[in-house]
Amino acid sequence: MKKEKATIHDISKSLGIDSSTVSRALNDSPRVSKTTKDAVIQKAKELGYQKNSLASNLRTNKTHTIAVVLPRISRHFFSTVIAGIEETAYEAGYNVIICQTLDILDREKKIMSTLISNRVDGVIISISMETTNYEHLEAYRNLNNPIIFFDRPCDLENCTNINIDNFHASFMTTEHLIFEGCKHIAHFSGSQNIELYRQRKNGYLAALKKHNIKVNDHYIFESNLSEEDGINSAKKLLKLGTVDGLISANDTAAIAAMQYFKSQGIKVPEDISVAGFNNDPISAVIDPSLTTINQPAFDIGKRASSLLLELIESKSTNTDTPSTVLNSELIIRNSSKKS
Amino acid sequence: MKKEKATIHDISKSLGIDSSTVSRALNDSPRVSKTTKDAVIQKAKELGYQKNSLASNLRTNKTHTIAVVLPRISRHFFSTVIAGIEETAYEAGYNVIICQTLDILDREKKIMSTLISNRVDGVIISISMETTNYEHLEAYRNLNNPIIFFDRPCDLENCTNINIDNFHASFMTTEHLIFEGCKHIAHFSGSQNIELYRQRKNGYLAALKKHNIKVNDHYIFESNLSEEDGINSAKKLLKLGTVDGLISANDTAAIAAMQYFKSQGIKVPEDISVAGFNNDPISAVIDPSLTTINQPAFDIGKRASSLLLELIESKSTNTDTPSTVLNSELIIRNSSKKS
Repeated sequence: MKKEKATIHDISKSLGIDSSTVSRALNDSPRVSKTTKDAVIQKAKELGYQKNSLASNLRTNKTHTIAVVLPRISRHFFSTVIAGIEETAYEAGYNVIICQTLDILDREKKIMSTLISNRVDGVIISISMETTNYEHLEAYRNLNNPIIFFDRPCDLENCTNINIDNFHASFMTTEHLIFEGCKHIAHFSGSQNIELYRQRKNGYLAALKKHNIKVNDHYIFESNLSEEDGINSAKKLLKLGTVDGLISANDTAAIAAMQYFKSQGIKVPEDISVAGFNNDPISAVIDPSLTTINQPAFDIGKRASSLLLELIESKSTNTDTPSTVLNSELIIRNSSKKS
Repeated sequence: MKKEKATIHDISKSLGIDSSTVSRALNDSPRVSKTTKDAVIQKAKELGYQKNSLASNLRTNKTHTIAVVLPRISRHFFSTVIAGIEETAYEAGYNVIICQTLDILDREKKIMSTLISNRVDGVIISISMETTNYEHLEAYRNLNNPIIFFDRPCDLENCTNINIDNFHASFMTTEHLIFEGCKHIAHFSGSQNIELYRQRKNGYLAALKKHNIKVNDHYIFESNLSEEDGINSAKKLLKLGTVDGLISANDTAAIAAMQYFKSQGIKVPEDISVAGFNNDPISAVIDPSLTTINQPAFDIGKRASSLLLELIESKSTNTDTPSTVLNSELIIRNSSKKS
């Protein structure tokens, strides 16, 4: 059976001294003699006394802990952002806890409510695919807690978002496929609830328009961009019979599609050129290697972390910093080189 | 500037009623009229009053939060274990927070101390490569907090470990390479502080012994098994000139070595057969595909989570369950098939 935790009163009773003296001794007050301090510390160890940090937190109102909330830690982009966040946070003496939503809104809400209870000093978040309203996030911020958004931007007033220019990245990629001779380019898109995916789709559409290529709605496949989604979309795509290029809004779905194409005897890039998004490690080693967009994930994490720490230290929830846009680069590999 | 958080006293003052009445109203006590309750709730919203969960936690002594502490969330094995832990925990109404140590002991200590402060109800941990003593973990358990170990076992008394039979898995893999005709088999091992890596090395040694192959100490490379470590060990290995097989204690180092061999014109499996450990997704798509050990990572997570929840619910820190060993399987792919 679990023992009850020892309290200051247990130490006080056991030593026959006042509990306020015990408390002062534990806090190394100059008003207590060394002999008493030593006796108290000795007894505290003996009884397994644990300093009640929750109670201290109630007083100082600070936990030196920040939280990262994101869809999936298993995605390379996200785990690299976390590495950047941690580097900056640990240097500044903050601990980092991580929570994943699996793109489920209900879980995101539960997590935010746990983080309110734990009184983490601030949150860095990439919202779930299902998040169409921000009430649970506003509730957190309304309690004077700072919050920074990355990857998937939020249009709440005075929010700070850290991103790349997704429109431009997608535009570049689409134009690259057009220059390689593709005339019928499909697009795997994520949920249109998410601004990020709207921007990637708009970049694709703008590039087609610039080069006078007619948009075909049947060429646009919206999904959660999982491996399974990639295979399902690839199946439908092949039935169209005309597609010669594919821009996927992530590498996961692009790679699943490439594997499916291979299994059906369709050659990449000869029959269909393929490009992804995120530069997952697998994109460099798969055959053919995958053309993709490299995001500065580590820098996104560092930037998010240092902005959040600034807010925490200045006891503010709003930054004057406008949303930050970092540069991305198109990495051209074999999956898109027709020539 | 950050506003001070509103308290029960602010509501009481603002409505001109007793603070104990406000407290009762907020706790929906039958001793308070509906009119008063409505007024209090209305005012609480207006002032942004936040129920003090920390204070409630002090009373109930339970947070319904468990923590997972592990070296690297970016490794497929670990992210899959987390998925298993979360499935069981969320079903039971527990939240999960994740912390990564990056195999740094100092960070592991800081994390454990944060988790004590946050009073998470229990911890599931895979210790860092640097962890050679368990004081910080004993300290956590001595405060009557339950802890479950997985992957990297701990030999503290009454600890519960959840693992596969690493000796057997490594023995099987080595024997497979011997059956394929390898006579000079090298081994990439992790830190010998970690029982897991000692077991994998011993399995390799036992298979050689069984087949009367002389052990050559120069064939054993100890490192942290990172990508860089894999390349460095591969360089040294090629200088030996005689090696025709390689068993790596993880896929990361095995794949890095394969890529390096390729860059040097060494053919896998014709010149050197290679096998890894963990069945990372990349191992199936790389060319040649990598022979590896598949661990039941999701089941390890589920088992760890349900054992931990049992301890939490029974207010105990020791299980009667002996350590659990789950089955693994050898997946034979092209990197090791000489014939």
